Amino acid sequence: MSKFDVIVIGAGVLGVSTCYHLKTNFPEKRVLLIDKMPAAGQGNTSKSAACFRNFYYSSTNFLLSDASINFYFHVQNDLGYDLGLKKVGYLFLFSDSQYKEISRVLKKMNQMEVETRTYERSDLEERLEIETDLSADEEAQIMKLENVDKGVLNVKAGYLSSDALIRFFEEGFKRLNGETLYNTRAERLILESEVRIGIPQEPLVWQDKRIIGVSTNRGDFYAEKLVVTAGTWSNTLLDPVGIDSHVKPKKRQVFVVKATNDKLKHLIHTKGFSEENCLPIIIPPNSFFFLKPMTEENGFWIVYPNYLGVPFELLDDPQPHENYFVYGLRPVLTRYFPQFTGTRVFNMWAGQRECSTQDQLPYVFEEAGVVSVNGAHGRGVKQADSIGRIAAGLCAEQDYVELYSGIEFRVRDLGVAERNVEREGFII
Amino acid sequence: MSKFDVIVIGAGVLGVSTCYHLKTNFPEKRVLLIDKMPAAGQGNTSKSAACFRNFYYSSTNFLLSDASINFYFHVQNDLGYDLGLKKVGYLFLFSDSQYKEISRVLKKMNQMEVETRTYERSDLEERLEIETDLSADEEAQIMKLENVDKGVLNVKAGYLSSDALIRFFEEGFKRLNGETLYNTRAERLILESEVRIGIPQEPLVWQDKRIIGVSTNRGDFYAEKLVVTAGTWSNTLLDPVGIDSHVKPKKRQVFVVKATNDKLKHLIHTKGFSEENCLPIIIPPNSFFFLKPMTEENGFWIVYPNYLGVPFELLDDPQPHENYFVYGLRPVLTRYFPQFTGTRVFNMWAGQRECSTQDQLPYVFEEAGVVSVNGAHGRGVKQADSIGRIAAGLCAEQDYVELYSGIEFRVRDLGVAERNVEREGFII
Repeated sequence: MSKFDVIVIGAGVLGVSTCYHLKTNFPEKRVLLIDKMPAAGQGNTSKSAACFRNFYYSSTNFLLSDASINFYFHVQNDLGYDLGLKKVGYLFLFSDSQYKEISRVLKKMNQMEVETRTYERSDLEERLEIETDLSADEEAQIMKLENVDKGVLNVKAGYLSSDALIRFFEEGFKRLNGETLYNTRAERLILESEVRIGIPQEPLVWQDKRIIGVSTNRGDFYAEKLVVTAGTWSNTLLDPVGIDSHVKPKKRQVFVVKATNDKLKHLIHTKGFSEENCLPIIIPPNSFFFLKPMTEENGFWIVYPNYLGVPFELLDDPQPHENYFVYGLRPVLTRYFPQFTGTRVFNMWAGQRECSTQDQLPYVFEEAGVVSVNGAHGRGVKQADSIGRIAAGLCAEQDYVELYSGIEFRVRDLGVAERNVEREGFII
Repeated sequence: MSKFDVIVIGAGVLGVSTCYHLKTNFPEKRVLLIDKMPAAGQGNTSKSAACFRNFYYSSTNFLLSDASINFYFHVQNDLGYDLGLKKVGYLFLFSDSQYKEISRVLKKMNQMEVETRTYERSDLEERLEIETDLSADEEAQIMKLENVDKGVLNVKAGYLSSDALIRFFEEGFKRLNGETLYNTRAERLILESEVRIGIPQEPLVWQDKRIIGVSTNRGDFYAEKLVVTAGTWSNTLLDPVGIDSHVKPKKRQVFVVKATNDKLKHLIHTKGFSEENCLPIIIPPNSFFFLKPMTEENGFWIVYPNYLGVPFELLDDPQPHENYFVYGLRPVLTRYFPQFTGTRVFNMWAGQRECSTQDQLPYVFEEAGVVSVNGAHGRGVKQADSIGRIAAGLCAEQDYVELYSGIEFRVRDLGVAERNVEREGFII
């Protein structure tokens, strides 16, 4: 019976990052990564918009994101590994009342030295050719859309290639003799008594017990610690042994619109917001979606992560619905950006994210030999490096780990019993 | 279309208590209580052990329980409504190391003026005829059972009739013209846009929306607020609209053993622990079950609420398994209480409790017109009066409610966004 020190279940971005940091920091550990797909990063990571920013109200979100971004730039600039990083910036469009409301967020951001630039309404009109005054637009009034009063640009923000990030972590893990086994579906966690006494009903209620392995379609595998980074599928492994992941899956959709007319082409290449000289990622006032420029594809991604009424449900193959674009997103988008009038969906897909509904922050905790690493709340790519370090530290029973920013992070802060996080107060 | 102020879904103990306090405090509100069963209290409340105590580490658990107990004694003693209350006490048997560990709990209990009495080992041996020294018992050593060193009796503790409690709340609710509709299964919550504009795809993503009613097998019912007190079934209503109840269902089992021999008859009528002059409820050291005396049935209930490996899963008709008694509970029980040697299960049943896995405390919060009242974590009967007051206060948009103990309780303390509870640290 082959026994590992750690088996990591799920080769999404959190899984490969955990593996990379396990082997980097503890090269003597024998680590196996398994996934049901034929390769790493083929689940919901592949459907992510892969945007990043360091502008959050929650200091926990800031720490996890900011340090990960620093690491990604280190990988691309110092190690010469192209992650497709584009620091295009993240532009929040605010109404007057919204801007007043977030003043405490901005103040806190300033204290944390998050670089922002504020744009006045007239400046935004000129640069983006957007409608900022919707007060005479009858349909916009029915839709309760607010005027744009200010824009706040988060400078340390943009997007990267989630494929490249997965490859970087996975290659590093393999180079350090990490083992992978794909096309391997984890079917159940194996719970056993710590001391077996040879009774058929084991483990009995009075026996100390722990998870010692995982049953898969390719046999049983055993390890000192089992790490569950199965994202939205984690509950299918953890619920049957009575461990709560604290997260629930929800669908998110991405719609691709091509820059088919001159105005859209002009918009995507808007200059002056960043050195990339293209449109920043944009969130309209009070919005439930954001617009991501994809210059390399000559188009835009419109990402629609959440709204009330989207069920919590596990979907193996979530489907996008064009109606959400036609009736839901486009009517709002075109009020602010008339350039999108008449646009059609060129491509679309749907994934799922694991919602951490108590505080919108990840859960990394150990129970009975299982380390659960879940609930990045749609920020898996943004925070993968930090979360991977914390998960690896927990596997090695460390109390603190150093994030790439140099900050010492208390591992149990992301746990359950001693949880100590700042709930995200800037929900846009 | 008949419209209510409040519809309460689920006539378990939390549902009827919420209804009672709604009509008591806000008699002008039109309140409807629905349940899929033919009567109130036929779900998991009917399978509860209905014990109570005020000995907790968490000050939140103490406040909710202590005030409810006061109310139940008021109902029975002042209002003359027999709730079957028996203040038999709750006796924790501790090992030496366990007793040292809980010294901080005991100190805190003292400060909160929780009445306890401590018993020495020799005293316990004499009163209960139990084995306290298992060091020479080979099987007990394999089972890692610890010696009993001290006993701590929680005086304000005992049990009541959950049927009587349900009847009290329900009758009070009906007397105040509360309406009930049983045999009525809530099938889904109705989500609608606040302002309808007559498009088939409504509610659209940009529309403000809220839950306005509930579809049942007997038609649709509408209300200003929908209260979900459906216990372990709550997720089947809340998940589809994307609201997280924050609780998960787990099975618990009750085994009944009759006092068939003289030693057991003697044990059940043990004198000196309370005015009831019977055995207190007892928890052995480090145990996962407790023993409840049922003098009126000439027997004992052995209640087995939880252990690692019991899955989180919703069961409409959970089944008990005699093997859990024979291989799991009896071997432990008989080591401490030789009186139970050779006993058999006379009756048994299983229910489910809603686990609140983050902090073991209830969640009472409003989202989009739905008030979710869940997660009593197996303490529904113990805390029903307090939770019902808090839920009724939330329906009426109050910031604070007065518990029966006279203490002002901040309603949002049991919510999600501004949650402020003390996690239970005394898990036995």
